[in-house]
Amino acid sequence: MSERSIRGKVAVAGVGETTYYKRGQSPDAEFLLGLKAIVAACDDAGISPKEIDGFCSFADDRNDPSRLSAALGIKEMNLSSMQWGGGGGGAAGVLQNGAAAIAAGYADVVVCYRALAQGQFGRYGQGPQVPYIQGERAFTSPYGLMSPAQMFAMKVVRFMHEHGIKQEALRALSMASYHHAQNNPRAVMNGKPLTEEKYDNSRWIVEPFHLFDCCMENDGAAAILLVSAERAKDIKQKPAYILGAAHGSGYRAAAPVHNSGDYPSSNFSTVAPHLYRQAQITPEDIDVAQIYENFTGGVLMTMIEHGLCKPEEANDFFQLDNLIAQGGKLPLNTSGGNLAECYMHGLGLQIEAIRQLRGQSTNQVKDAKIALAAAGPMVSPVSTIIYGTEDTL
Amino acid sequence: MSERSIRGKVAVAGVGETTYYKRGQSPDAEFLLGLKAIVAACDDAGISPKEIDGFCSFADDRNDPSRLSAALGIKEMNLSSMQWGGGGGGAAGVLQNGAAAIAAGYADVVVCYRALAQGQFGRYGQGPQVPYIQGERAFTSPYGLMSPAQMFAMKVVRFMHEHGIKQEALRALSMASYHHAQNNPRAVMNGKPLTEEKYDNSRWIVEPFHLFDCCMENDGAAAILLVSAERAKDIKQKPAYILGAAHGSGYRAAAPVHNSGDYPSSNFSTVAPHLYRQAQITPEDIDVAQIYENFTGGVLMTMIEHGLCKPEEANDFFQLDNLIAQGGKLPLNTSGGNLAECYMHGLGLQIEAIRQLRGQSTNQVKDAKIALAAAGPMVSPVSTIIYGTEDTL
Repeated sequence: MSERSIRGKVAVAGVGETTYYKRGQSPDAEFLLGLKAIVAACDDAGISPKEIDGFCSFADDRNDPSRLSAALGIKEMNLSSMQWGGGGGGAAGVLQNGAAAIAAGYADVVVCYRALAQGQFGRYGQGPQVPYIQGERAFTSPYGLMSPAQMFAMKVVRFMHEHGIKQEALRALSMASYHHAQNNPRAVMNGKPLTEEKYDNSRWIVEPFHLFDCCMENDGAAAILLVSAERAKDIKQKPAYILGAAHGSGYRAAAPVHNSGDYPSSNFSTVAPHLYRQAQITPEDIDVAQIYENFTGGVLMTMIEHGLCKPEEANDFFQLDNLIAQGGKLPLNTSGGNLAECYMHGLGLQIEAIRQLRGQSTNQVKDAKIALAAAGPMVSPVSTIIYGTEDTL
Repeated sequence: MSERSIRGKVAVAGVGETTYYKRGQSPDAEFLLGLKAIVAACDDAGISPKEIDGFCSFADDRNDPSRLSAALGIKEMNLSSMQWGGGGGGAAGVLQNGAAAIAAGYADVVVCYRALAQGQFGRYGQGPQVPYIQGERAFTSPYGLMSPAQMFAMKVVRFMHEHGIKQEALRALSMASYHHAQNNPRAVMNGKPLTEEKYDNSRWIVEPFHLFDCCMENDGAAAILLVSAERAKDIKQKPAYILGAAHGSGYRAAAPVHNSGDYPSSNFSTVAPHLYRQAQITPEDIDVAQIYENFTGGVLMTMIEHGLCKPEEANDFFQLDNLIAQGGKLPLNTSGGNLAECYMHGLGLQIEAIRQLRGQSTNQVKDAKIALAAAGPMVSPVSTIIYGTEDTL
């Protein structure tokens, strides 16, 4: 790679979310949820929705930019793109695409969005509801790997076995999310604290995942407004700048062999070096981390492959006290994340990273200047962004 | 918009195509077609397929970057994105996304590709083969607007009526494509020349579209390899540089009202100004044009909205002699295009623009230095690229 870089050229102007609902409880249609989140992000930034001229979303989004443009009364739409991969892997990639488009001069105000109504359009947590199964799954479904939890458990069990990581590490990850959700009124699990006992006694979904190791299924929408660094000088909020944005996957990531040496991976091992090189920081510089958890095991692998914890130190590191905003070594998923705030395919985690740098989190990490937000350890490609305050430029 | 720009920063290193087949005649599966085109583009550039680290494709591509990466033995994939919109609108947008990613430093060698096997996966030219109809179509299907030709005819008839454009203009567009195809051995319609009489006597698909006004339905694949301008110094071919790349749509483009004043539009009126501003040229500077034709009427509208012809001059301008490579005023669709070379959702038109700047077209325009290639006048968003030789930088 050359010296071409977007470091500091693009900033987050606004963030917006709808009310987050349990799957099936949204009174609004998915498209309306999307519009509400976009308008909320504009209000947050102090930018009119009519100024949006670019839209970036996930591969399988049902809410297309042309219809959103028409509904928002946008005069001209100059940019639209989607991010390949399962929903999870895209959350940071969507923002990465938007940032490149702004840096290239294609658009001035780009909204990155996700609207999901699992109650209206079907659940992600189940196996495929189709009469036939395509692709890689055709080889694994006959052996009982039907749902995402079952498929991902194979990697996590092997990873934990190889590094001697105990179940208590997963429990700590789950408890950190539920801990933070108790201070976050947006969180679906706000008011429903988790104890060690409750975790231990909860049912297995598939080993090593208890019920509380798994993300929720929700209805709602989230949106993030990106602008150029110059434009960011005029906005209502303190801007968070994109220092580095990387996505991708390693050798044969889409054709995993279950007994190969590189099978137990979160796919971040080739992504993380590009990320840190762009951001010009090291893992030690990160003040707060938001790590995608469709299942807690992915957080374990993602953090280790980002160099945030050594595998041999995992049992010591993944303890509740180390992970909470109130004095933890590396505060993690400070909104409650996908487990306890809302599963908006990881876009909520990106928003929480931004809130931390503004000083607006409900679990504020003191003087947070650099935040990392990673997306999608289960699928290929995966993606991560490092955000920084103005001080870090 | 600001001074941010990619002008001259990204170059086309290689182009590749499979054999182009009539729908249903490909002996290869769609995924294999895609791989073959990508490898051909790499051979053309003198770059190993293993050096590809980015993939850009169309919204509904079935051939995902992770599987392609695995099949090509790529060590790490650092970029993947898709372009919203129907296939047609994306052809230039796909390249635009890839160019932004290279300029941002996300990836070094990006392949933009399209693999289509209409024989294996269903035809675009028919109405929807589903038990229910969603979106805008739910309002128009009951009135008989089922197929793309029927839907688009409404706009074109109105456009021709408003500007007094005659059927002979469409005939000239069709004949230009068939003329060029006779010199292009890749063209599916090579060896099948078209005469005025044959056109006039051909059946109506829907007025104003005769059979020969409509694109073909094909199997095949096409690929274009993008690199940074620095990297382009080492490649086997004479590079073509991206001078400008724009896509998008205007006010309420996705919610057209059939009796509104702005209904008869190709959607390029908001895109073209951004394009020319980026490229720092005027329409008069263009030596050769490749304009997406799912139907000839779209070419008419696209060229007028790009300022390549005034509407009141259309009947004089759209004459066969003006449109052919051999001495025409503005040579058009010099490969045979979607009508007579192959319908690869417009990626073939982009490739032909590049061939012209290399001096490698089978209908070479003398001293061509600037080429325009537009994509998708029927859908929203639409996209266009202006390419230039090294002399134009």
